[in-house]
Amino acid sequence: MNFDPATLRYDAAGLIPCVAQDHATNEVLMMAWMNADAVARTLETGRVTYWSRSRQAFWVKGETSGHVQKLIDLRVDCDRDCLLALVEQTGPACHTNRRSCFFTALRDGDEVELSKPME
Amino acid sequence: MNFDPATLRYDAAGLIPCVAQDHATNEVLMMAWMNADAVARTLETGRVTYWSRSRQAFWVKGETSGHVQKLIDLRVDCDRDCLLALVEQTGPACHTNRRSCFFTALRDGDEVELSKPME
Repeated sequence: MNFDPATLRYDAAGLIPCVAQDHATNEVLMMAWMNADAVARTLETGRVTYWSRSRQAFWVKGETSGHVQKLIDLRVDCDRDCLLALVEQTGPACHTNRRSCFFTALRDGDEVELSKPME
Repeated sequence: MNFDPATLRYDAAGLIPCVAQDHATNEVLMMAWMNADAVARTLETGRVTYWSRSRQAFWVKGETSGHVQKLIDLRVDCDRDCLLALVEQTGPACHTNRRSCFFTALRDGDEVELSKPME
């Protein structure tokens, strides 16, 4: 393919942030990191695949939980140092069992919980 | 206020990524970085303020271009290491004069330009 993941800009650890967004509702679900191989795997398989910084291993989203992210469209920003993955999310994206990881709002000096874990 | 920006998780450079999303359309506009002071300024002023890594200075979005981001809601993710700012965006968010920085899609091995600069 003409697109080469090596042309993206990675940080000192060889990683690029990737924001996952629900393709149907546009809800922002989570942010995680990819290396060049994870970008290539995501495009090749259509399954969003991150690089786990804690485990130092590929993280095929939902591989164990079943909460997979099917890639609908992958986009890169103007500086080529951030990715946006439009996904079809099965179940919750967050490990707390919430749809989105961004369930805490900072309002008037307080932290407000916007959603509860899914049943 | 009860919320303390120091309780967020910053990288080795003292920065946390912040995704800006149009509060009305849910379009993801851009991603940039904040330090703890930028988080505090954003909450205090209601004007989204990043930390420019290239200039090593506060970056009050739109201060020179007029393309300001009025903060509607600031959210933090489950790991407290990523922010999501819902904003009212005046004009384009991208320095290329496009509404969003994520105007390039990676499709079938090609890079596809999704939008043109605004007039």
